Amino acid sequence: MHDKKRTEIAELGEFGLIDCLTRSAAADNESTLKGVGDDAAVIAAGRNDAIVVSTDALLEGVDFDLTYFPLKHLGYKAVTVGASDILAMNALPEQIMISLGVSSKMSVEALKDLYEGIEFACKELGIDLAGGDTRASMTGLTIGITTIGRARRKAISYRGGAQFNDLICITGNLGAAYMGLQLLEREKRVLADVENPEPQFAGHEYLLQRYLKPRARKDIIEALAEEKIVPTSMIDISDGLASEVLQICKASKCGARIYLDRIPIAKQTTALAEEMHADPVVAALNGGEDYELMFTVPLAMQEQVMRLGLVDVVGHITRESTGAYLVTPDGSDIKLRAQGFKE
Amino acid sequence: MHDKKRTEIAELGEFGLIDCLTRSAAADNESTLKGVGDDAAVIAAGRNDAIVVSTDALLEGVDFDLTYFPLKHLGYKAVTVGASDILAMNALPEQIMISLGVSSKMSVEALKDLYEGIEFACKELGIDLAGGDTRASMTGLTIGITTIGRARRKAISYRGGAQFNDLICITGNLGAAYMGLQLLEREKRVLADVENPEPQFAGHEYLLQRYLKPRARKDIIEALAEEKIVPTSMIDISDGLASEVLQICKASKCGARIYLDRIPIAKQTTALAEEMHADPVVAALNGGEDYELMFTVPLAMQEQVMRLGLVDVVGHITRESTGAYLVTPDGSDIKLRAQGFKE
Repeated sequence: MHDKKRTEIAELGEFGLIDCLTRSAAADNESTLKGVGDDAAVIAAGRNDAIVVSTDALLEGVDFDLTYFPLKHLGYKAVTVGASDILAMNALPEQIMISLGVSSKMSVEALKDLYEGIEFACKELGIDLAGGDTRASMTGLTIGITTIGRARRKAISYRGGAQFNDLICITGNLGAAYMGLQLLEREKRVLADVENPEPQFAGHEYLLQRYLKPRARKDIIEALAEEKIVPTSMIDISDGLASEVLQICKASKCGARIYLDRIPIAKQTTALAEEMHADPVVAALNGGEDYELMFTVPLAMQEQVMRLGLVDVVGHITRESTGAYLVTPDGSDIKLRAQGFKE
Repeated sequence: MHDKKRTEIAELGEFGLIDCLTRSAAADNESTLKGVGDDAAVIAAGRNDAIVVSTDALLEGVDFDLTYFPLKHLGYKAVTVGASDILAMNALPEQIMISLGVSSKMSVEALKDLYEGIEFACKELGIDLAGGDTRASMTGLTIGITTIGRARRKAISYRGGAQFNDLICITGNLGAAYMGLQLLEREKRVLADVENPEPQFAGHEYLLQRYLKPRARKDIIEALAEEKIVPTSMIDISDGLASEVLQICKASKCGARIYLDRIPIAKQTTALAEEMHADPVVAALNGGEDYELMFTVPLAMQEQVMRLGLVDVVGHITRESTGAYLVTPDGSDIKLRAQGFKE
């Protein structure tokens, strides 16, 4: 179609691509408090409140493999993915809209399973299923997710608010979902030609759960509100810790130092990584799909944050000129790198 | 995956399927003014206002064919599709978020063309591009569209508000986009094996424009506001007139009579339909993708509505028990039927 110059998407990488495409997107409407560049758009609603809206997509073959992903779990995870973006703004999700593209090979019963998972997660999080539609798809299953939340304007945490010397906090532990996926992929490969496959999952239930049915950390946002802590910046950990740290650094025009031995990793994650000759730290840094939260608070809040009992401090914010680094136990610095455009 | 009963999606049809899946979706949050069942969800925002949010998807191979759909036009149309849902609530679109799934075979330049169309339409409609992302797709191009608008709560037109004896009004003309698509498909078939294809489009520019670059009817919503007309119900005409009339009847628990000879059809539509041995009325009733608006107003407002100079009155609302009918010039009644689940 084009005789002009042809640039491959891989040359720019995912972040470079989005920058390049949305460079000219200016916000002109008064109601647009925040447009491109965060987990969600922020829309004025009344004098003091805001509505935050996020959009996500789960695509068969890219984000999930139906040979081992139960549809009920997939529905649950779709809601987690959407809710997590809203929570990462320090807002509470209230509505969700799900748009399905389904191939005709799917049965109505299968779709009902998917919706059962959606409704279960909605109930758990206090979210109303407020719309969406179901369309034919020529290819695989596509799940479009639009999530709507609400917050006081003053309480919203943006990616761009991290300050010099802020502490970098992480909820839960990282890399477990990625190792769960590795396990599922291994069993799929091993059992590809077996007639009555019996995958070996014993002892790895936690990792499977973290990949197949991750919980959105609404508890954290509620705990922060109770302690009257408004993080200076926040992001959800969906692409791996390295990528999220770099996003915060870019938006906040700062650097960061992350201490390798402080990254929370579950013992199950380490055990399977060792069994599979993989590095659990790499799973935490680049694996993704944890749906935990990363946020920053002023140094003075260290005690208050630790009192929550829900987070680990893994590092701190530095000047932009110093860059973003991972500090190993022997004291050497490794430059953090974002993942490329996944294919 | 299932040993249980298997029901094919086609057995239920698209509307039956959505009903079946979202039956248990109750709205529990105070802020959910309207959930499932309209062009958009309606969310409380301040005491008197509401934010309306709609979600749409355009899928390659289902909604567009890149062999003849210029990417700039596709971007423009994506915004039209989203904006049209918001306008159909009698609200004005203010923000849009676009989520792309792109295959690696697409070049950055192609994506820039797509975004150029998106930004052009946004500018025309006063919409801010407020987010979204770009992801890898294993299959074709997928475009997820989330559109956000705003209205006074009292001014919102729902599908469920049509009253007995209301007039049914249509903007613009119907069936043109469908005939544009038929023309593009014909030329694609005819020229499939030709080396330097030269499609014959002369004289059909209007139809192509209606399919490839439809305009969202923001002018209508502004004109209605100026005349202080709040339609009792409204819907955008994306699936063909028959389907939209049935949606209004279902939501408003009423019947309808549409007069065949009053359906506005452009002479270009009729001319090409005749050339292709097709029925222009079928194109208007079932073709879809017109992105015009259908709304109802009380009978007493007839003069006021006609003064707009922008609409045709094509019928009126009847009791639910009478059903929804198309009345032919010779006076016979044909029961209106919805389209099935397109595959």
